[in-house]
Amino acid sequence: DSKLKIFTCNANPTLARQIADYIGIPLGDSETMRFSDGEIQIKLNESVRGCHVYVVQPTCAPVNDSLMELLVMVDALKRASAKSINVVIPYYGYARQDRKARSRDPITAKLVANLIEKAGAHRVITMDLHAMQIQGFFDIPVDHLLGVPILAQYFRSKKIENPIVVSPDHGGVVRARKLADFLNAPLAIIDKRRPEPNVSEVMNIIGNIEGKTAILIDDIIDTAGTIILGANALVEGGVKEVYACCTHPVFSGPAMERLENSPLKEVVVTDTIPLTHTNPSGKLKVLSVAPLMGEAIIRVHEELSISKLFEIE
Amino acid sequence: DSKLKIFTCNANPTLARQIADYIGIPLGDSETMRFSDGEIQIKLNESVRGCHVYVVQPTCAPVNDSLMELLVMVDALKRASAKSINVVIPYYGYARQDRKARSRDPITAKLVANLIEKAGAHRVITMDLHAMQIQGFFDIPVDHLLGVPILAQYFRSKKIENPIVVSPDHGGVVRARKLADFLNAPLAIIDKRRPEPNVSEVMNIIGNIEGKTAILIDDIIDTAGTIILGANALVEGGVKEVYACCTHPVFSGPAMERLENSPLKEVVVTDTIPLTHTNPSGKLKVLSVAPLMGEAIIRVHEELSISKLFEIE
Ligand SMILES: Nc1ncnc2c1ncn2[C@@H]1O[C@H](COP(=O)(O)O)[C@@H](O)[C@H]1O
Ligand SMILES: Nc1ncnc2c1ncn2[C@@H]1O[C@H](COP(=O)(O)O)[C@@H](O)[C@H]1O
Repeated sequence: DSKLKIFTCNANPTLARQIADYIGIPLGDSETMRFSDGEIQIKLNESVRGCHVYVVQPTCAPVNDSLMELLVMVDALKRASAKSINVVIPYYGYARQDRKARSRDPITAKLVANLIEKAGAHRVITMDLHAMQIQGFFDIPVDHLLGVPILAQYFRSKKIENPIVVSPDHGGVVRARKLADFLNAPLAIIDKRRPEPNVSEVMNIIGNIEGKTAILIDDIIDTAGTIILGANALVEGGVKEVYACCTHPVFSGPAMERLENSPLKEVVVTDTIPLTHTNPSGKLKVLSVAPLMGEAIIRVHEELSISKLFEIE
Repeated sequence: DSKLKIFTCNANPTLARQIADYIGIPLGDSETMRFSDGEIQIKLNESVRGCHVYVVQPTCAPVNDSLMELLVMVDALKRASAKSINVVIPYYGYARQDRKARSRDPITAKLVANLIEKAGAHRVITMDLHAMQIQGFFDIPVDHLLGVPILAQYFRSKKIENPIVVSPDHGGVVRARKLADFLNAPLAIIDKRRPEPNVSEVMNIIGNIEGKTAILIDDIIDTAGTIILGANALVEGGVKEVYACCTHPVFSGPAMERLENSPLKEVVVTDTIPLTHTNPSGKLKVLSVAPLMGEAIIRVHEELSISKLFEIE
C-alpha cells in the first residue's frame, strides 16, 4: 500500500497543517520561498518517490502567486517521481471568469484548469466552485465538496427561532435550498430587477420574511456589495434579524468595512481562504473545513465513496 | 494577406509602443486590469478575427503577474479567433530554473514553456535566454534574438582605446567571444574557484588585462553580485577602466546601490525589462531593443529569414 503525504505552499499553511493533523500525519517537509527577483523557489526536503501526494493550496489572493506556487510544486513533485499528485484547492480562484460574458472575454477558469493538468496533477479536490460546470473544464477526476453541511451544522447549534434561508440572487437558489432543507426552514429569494438601463436596481423579495430571522447564503463574499444590498432589503422588508454566511471569504476592497457597518448580526464563513483582516466587533465567525477536507483525502486515498460527506448528523 | 496586430499587457507597455511605432502600426486596443480581488481582467476592444497577433510581454517582476497576464491574453486572443498568436517575450523569467541543480528541484523554465504552449501560443520570439537549451523546451518555433549586436554598436561608437572583453564566468564565454569579435578586441575570463567548502572564492583572471579598458558582459544583472566581484578583481588586476553591460537588467535587491558604489564607469543595458529605479549618477545607459524586435516581427510576419539581425553594420 502506497504512502499518503500532504504538502503545502504559502496560500493557507494553517489549513494544511490542520488537515494533516486530522489525518494524523506530519505535513511534508518543503519550503516555498522567493529568489531575490521574486521568482518562486521550492525545496522538497523529503522523498516523495512512489507516494500519493496531496498538495493543499487555495488559489486565493495574491492569486497569481498562489497559482504559480501550486504549479511549480506539482512540477517538482512530478520530477521527484510521486506516484500520484492530487491538488486540494479549497478555493478555486478565477472561477467567476467561466464563460464569455462579453465578446472576446478570456475564459480564465478553463485556462487555469488546463495549466493545472499540464503541470502534472492527476486529481482535483475542491469546494463550492462558483459554477459547477468548472468540473467539466478538467479531464482528470474532480471531487467537489460542499460547505453547506458545515454552515448548516453551525446554524442548527444556534437554535434560531423562526429561521428563513435567503438566496441573494437567482444564481444561488440551489445552494440556499440545500441549507433550508438541512435547517427545515422556508426559502426566500431576492429578485433584482433593473427597470431601465442606468437606473438603479429594484430589490423585490420573493417569500414571506416578516418577523423571521433571515440567513443569507452565498458561495463567495467578495466586496460584500450583494450581501449588504440583500441585508438592507431584508431589514426594510421587516425581518427580525439577519445573518449572512458563505464558504469563501474573499473580502476584497471595502468588504470588511461594509460588513462592520451593516445590519448583519453575524457573518459566518469558512477557512478555505485565510482571513487577513482583524475582526474588531467579533461579527465574523470562522468555521474550519479541515475535518471535511481531511476526511475527503482519507476516503479518496482509500478509494471509498465521498458521498457521506454531503450529509449531516 | 492577413493582418498584423501588436498587443501588450502591463509588463513593458513602453517597449510595446516603440515596437508598434517601428513597424508603423498602432498598438492593438486592449486593457489589462485587475478585479477588486486582484484577479486579472483583460478586455480586447477590437476584433482580431483572422489576424496574426504579436503579444509583447516580458515575464519580468512581478513575474507571476506578468506571466499570468500573458497567458490570459493568449487565451482571450485564441477564443477571439486570431489566426496566429505569436508571443514576444524580450526577457524570459524563470530561465535560471532550467535543470535539476539539486535533487527534487522543479524545472520551472520548462513548466513555463508548457504553460505558454497550452494557453495557445503558436510561436515565441525571445532574446538572450539564460540557457539556449530552453528553446528545446518548446514544441513550437522559437526565434531567438541576441543583444550583443546592440551592445557592440554602442561600444564601437564610444571608440574605446585598447578594449578587452571580459566574461565574468565560464558560462558566458560564448557571448563574450561574440562581443570581442564585433569590437575586434581580445578576450579575458574570470575564473572563480572555491579552494575548500565554506571558504570564499578566489578570483583568477585568465588573460592579459593590464592597462586595458575592460568591458564585462553578462546576459542578466540580477543582484549585481557577480558583476561587482568581477569589476573589483579587474581593478585589482590593473585595468584602466571597467564598463559592464548586459541584455536584461533584472536589478533586484541591492543591485542599484552596488552598481552606484562600484568602480564601474558605466553600466550599459537594454530595455527588455523596464527600469523602475532612478539613475542618480547617470551611470546607467539604456539601449532600446525596439528596432531589433520590430524588425524581427516584420521579417517573421513576411516569412523572411531573421539571420541578418545577428549582424552589425
Ligand atoms: N474576480 C472577479 N471579481 C469581480 N467580477 C469578476 C471576477 N472575475 C470575473 N468577474 C466577472 O463576473 C461575471 C461573472 O459572475 P457571475 O455572473 O456571478 O457568474 C463576469 O462578467 C466576469 O467578467
Ligand atoms: N531567480 C533566481 N535568482 C537566483 N537564483 C536562481 C533563480 N532561479 C534559479 N536560480 C538558481 O540559479 C542556479 C542556476 O543558475 P546558473 O548556474 O547561472 O544557470 C540554480 O541553482 C537555480 O536554483
